[in-house]
Amino acid sequence: MKKEKYNQTIFFKNCPKIIGNFSVVGPKEGLGNFGEYFDVILKSDDFNEKTYEKSERKMLETAVTGAIKSAKLKNEDIDMILAGDLLNQSISASYTARTFDMPYLGVFGACSTMAESLAVGACLIDGGYFGRVACATGSHFSTAERQFRFPLELGNQKPPTSQWTCTASGCSILSSKGNGPCITSATFGKVTDYGISDVNNMGAVMAPPAMNTLLSHFYDTKTKPTDYDLIVTGDLGKFGKQVLIELMEDKGVILGENYVDCGDMMFKESQDTLMGGSGCGCSASVLNSYILQKMKEGVYNKVLFVATGVLLSTTAAQQGETIPGIAHCVVIENLRGKKCY
Amino acid sequence: MKKEKYNQTIFFKNCPKIIGNFSVVGPKEGLGNFGEYFDVILKSDDFNEKTYEKSERKMLETAVTGAIKSAKLKNEDIDMILAGDLLNQSISASYTARTFDMPYLGVFGACSTMAESLAVGACLIDGGYFGRVACATGSHFSTAERQFRFPLELGNQKPPTSQWTCTASGCSILSSKGNGPCITSATFGKVTDYGISDVNNMGAVMAPPAMNTLLSHFYDTKTKPTDYDLIVTGDLGKFGKQVLIELMEDKGVILGENYVDCGDMMFKESQDTLMGGSGCGCSASVLNSYILQKMKEGVYNKVLFVATGVLLSTTAAQQGETIPGIAHCVVIENLRGKKCY
Repeated sequence: MKKEKYNQTIFFKNCPKIIGNFSVVGPKEGLGNFGEYFDVILKSDDFNEKTYEKSERKMLETAVTGAIKSAKLKNEDIDMILAGDLLNQSISASYTARTFDMPYLGVFGACSTMAESLAVGACLIDGGYFGRVACATGSHFSTAERQFRFPLELGNQKPPTSQWTCTASGCSILSSKGNGPCITSATFGKVTDYGISDVNNMGAVMAPPAMNTLLSHFYDTKTKPTDYDLIVTGDLGKFGKQVLIELMEDKGVILGENYVDCGDMMFKESQDTLMGGSGCGCSASVLNSYILQKMKEGVYNKVLFVATGVLLSTTAAQQGETIPGIAHCVVIENLRGKKCY
Repeated sequence: MKKEKYNQTIFFKNCPKIIGNFSVVGPKEGLGNFGEYFDVILKSDDFNEKTYEKSERKMLETAVTGAIKSAKLKNEDIDMILAGDLLNQSISASYTARTFDMPYLGVFGACSTMAESLAVGACLIDGGYFGRVACATGSHFSTAERQFRFPLELGNQKPPTSQWTCTASGCSILSSKGNGPCITSATFGKVTDYGISDVNNMGAVMAPPAMNTLLSHFYDTKTKPTDYDLIVTGDLGKFGKQVLIELMEDKGVILGENYVDCGDMMFKESQDTLMGGSGCGCSASVLNSYILQKMKEGVYNKVLFVATGVLLSTTAAQQGETIPGIAHCVVIENLRGKKCY
């Protein structure tokens, strides 16, 4: 690997622990590959609300409530909620925070939000500032499509490179005390733009920032892909995953068989989602169900979780801008008495 | 003051220092009360760009570049940029981060962003995770009005309670080393909603969260208003400021003569801005010009900076939601060899 100047990774000495987690998904996601792992699968994606935006928010609230309960805690035990989402002004996160009587730190990283909130949350715990924080995000197919692309009623055909925004939410509770997988390091990504302007090819937008963050992570931590039981990107989808593999190969890094992508894995082939799942909720729900479950079972002990985001704006697109992306990552480890950094 | 359960404040032991700062404002702001303190006053609010959005971004880039230079540093000396803004998907912040080759942490708190980015940035410095970070935000009258209210071309009359979104940007450089005013504590706010649905009365939305954050701050830090040389809220404006004073009085706290509001002070009476300035850039530009200048001169030695934000969304408003707000605050002190907490 070519050595470049990187200094994007921070290390946690006091092992912020994931002591609770919860996932809520829509019916289509429930029929996908992780159906048996999700905590709640909705019967209808409107969640008995009058609008999809209200449904998205209710899913996020349900995820936060579920995660707090799974940690055997009450709302008042949580010092802060860190959250964000895809909607303008992060309304799902902000209105969710209104429901819970706790300080709110709004973060923005589009679909990289799960890793971003965990990274910042881990700093707040590790630095001794707070004892327990909730890190959450989510997305909804019907809110994202109509905000970023076309009214659903138009019934537009999706081009072959497009992905399916997941109707899904996830929340993790981080704590200074207790038991659970630890967050041992985090790498903050740079905004990276390879000149893509196709709003239906998010994989191509996100692969370059994922590469940048992974190269920085491996360099900063002096690790290589085989040091992890699982390297999991957020929602590159089938095409973006292949682009990332090839970009990394060009840099001399073979991601290998332990590399997977949540968007690629979310749906079954028969579900006709083209390049697979996307959205903040994609990686958030897979992390807070399947991945953490398999870590608790000891199937995985060291996971590199890389959430990838497209910083897509219709206004910027209309003004001729290309679409930048970003990726943040955290390392989640079963330490079993071993020390952090 | 009635004692309630608060635990929203964190304390910094290692004194993150503001070693550089810069402000950029539009022509109208330059003619206001702080004209002589701003670093750059634009001749035209399009800043020679084709759109107001591109102008807003260029102002933010100029503020970041200026702050780095004022700290006698180069871009590569900065470990991270923490930024956010009012536009959908925080495009000013994200595209600014694209320009600078540094990790980006997107934060969302609407007009509370300056305090939010300083609070999170101070954690990253104080916790020893990074050495130097840039905290920045900005806003533009013409981008905010057309996104949140009406097309400018309509020439709508503004109702008496409305404020004038400032065309302004500000950036502070935080560092673990060097000299400058220190951030000694930060209080993270809760999302607070008193049921206001009038998009032209932002002061009424922001006063309750400002009260919540101030009550928590005074309780958590065991201080009272007279312990500060200056208590400055972000952009409550003339009406919101009066509401906050009365809300606090109801709780038994007299804010007193050392309490001011950036929105209230920004413009001259003759400039016809009704309740005064607003927008992320309002408090960001006043902090990064007048306030830090007066701290360096020793006029103020302990400042409580409370940035206030309206979590306004046209989508949520159309779906019948009321408008929540949030406020975050930081204490900025001239320590002159004294210890932090």
